[in-house]
Amino acid sequence: MTKFDEATGAIRVDETTYDVCLDPGYSIGGPLNGGYLMAVLLRAVVDASPHEHPVTTSAQFLRAAVPGPAQVRLEQIKTGRTATMTRASLVRDGDSIIESLVTTATLGGAAPDWTDGPSVAMPPMEQCLRLPAPKTESNMTLNAQMELAFDPPTIGWLDGRPSGRPEARAYFRMAEPQDPDPYVLALAVDALPPVVFSAGERGWAPTVDLTWHLRALPAPGWLTVIAGGRLISDGWFDEDVEVWDSAGRLVAQSRQLARVGRG
Amino acid sequence: MTKFDEATGAIRVDETTYDVCLDPGYSIGGPLNGGYLMAVLLRAVVDASPHEHPVTTSAQFLRAAVPGPAQVRLEQIKTGRTATMTRASLVRDGDSIIESLVTTATLGGAAPDWTDGPSVAMPPMEQCLRLPAPKTESNMTLNAQMELAFDPPTIGWLDGRPSGRPEARAYFRMAEPQDPDPYVLALAVDALPPVVFSAGERGWAPTVDLTWHLRALPAPGWLTVIAGGRLISDGWFDEDVEVWDSAGRLVAQSRQLARVGRG
Repeated sequence: MTKFDEATGAIRVDETTYDVCLDPGYSIGGPLNGGYLMAVLLRAVVDASPHEHPVTTSAQFLRAAVPGPAQVRLEQIKTGRTATMTRASLVRDGDSIIESLVTTATLGGAAPDWTDGPSVAMPPMEQCLRLPAPKTESNMTLNAQMELAFDPPTIGWLDGRPSGRPEARAYFRMAEPQDPDPYVLALAVDALPPVVFSAGERGWAPTVDLTWHLRALPAPGWLTVIAGGRLISDGWFDEDVEVWDSAGRLVAQSRQLARVGRG
Repeated sequence: MTKFDEATGAIRVDETTYDVCLDPGYSIGGPLNGGYLMAVLLRAVVDASPHEHPVTTSAQFLRAAVPGPAQVRLEQIKTGRTATMTRASLVRDGDSIIESLVTTATLGGAAPDWTDGPSVAMPPMEQCLRLPAPKTESNMTLNAQMELAFDPPTIGWLDGRPSGRPEARAYFRMAEPQDPDPYVLALAVDALPPVVFSAGERGWAPTVDLTWHLRALPAPGWLTVIAGGRLISDGWFDEDVEVWDSAGRLVAQSRQLARVGRG
């Protein structure tokens, strides 16, 4: 069992309630990362489902969460031979943090009937940039859980050279050796800095809705995470993420709508 | 009041319940179109919200719906100065048809801070193909509500010449003159034939999750609807839709995950 497995563990209380403990290791400057919170919630949903995989997850984020005990509350709305639909809430101190709708099903491993390629070609990993290790006193604890190797132009904003368009691209794997699985993918779709940083924006960019689809079970090895946006307007932006596995297969797609930070 | 306004009308019963009447004019071979059903549901959500626009809607589709009386059941989960989050269900004869999470807010009309262009260039409208009017006895009544002018290669499957990739593109407006609004956009994001038809698939392709974001209020005139998919695998496909208004502004984005038809 990896640290990530432990940090996302959900303990069944009864058929509608799971106890969880939100781990301080997934913090992004205080609040916990949204992808991590989804992984926790999905552990409970899948445990309660007759199906194995969280195929589609629509999550709306109501408020930021801090570490500590919390609960996942479930209601199975419909269950059938191919899929089960569940309404799931992550609740902390009586407050709803995430409201979600999740469809679980069981994916096979057949070759795709039709597939597109990545929307952007990544440079080889040796040309990509690793970020310096976080300072021990940092409250960006999430950074220590993952290894990210960034496509250089998309991280230029760190040195005051934003590319001028919303984008972020990196190779991704867990710092503690672990094969990627659907819960790692839930983390990966929300793991990069907000794409608007590359367009010159700054500050906490709260997600309002994040919907993601598990398209295949990932092969072992590095993941490639490609993120972009189409429109920054009226204080809102979209962030579209595709995740490819080491076998060159599209394994996850997500889109979030978020607020531009004020900071 | 247009026919579409009437067909999507929601009458308040109390703060958690609206009565609606699902209109036989939006049928696609028996079941009602999912975009139409979302428009009905969103009328109730917006009526009950202090905010004016359905900015983000995540809808999971549980079963097909037929015309007749139904209800929208609402629960406002959180409301604030900038946004209200609502859980909404469309219920017909005691069965849930759609479960959704909707964030309402009020969009302004300022110019975008950053915008991409359309992902595919459309040919001029005079080079696009109108479909023949539906036969009067047809149960594809939805077709009579809209005018669609298709980018020719994307409708080649109708004559046995699918383009070989998941795509659909058309100019769109309501048949009865009406300026587009957020409810027309809810219809537009699900109005084209499933993108998999163009990849050679056939049959009823049930939507499992459709999430869409209202990015701006549309200008009067034709809309441009551009749909594509990235992966057809294991019986599942994605359909990504962008809607541009006559002023060249990105007004809606959607993605659905659906099942490939067996027919």
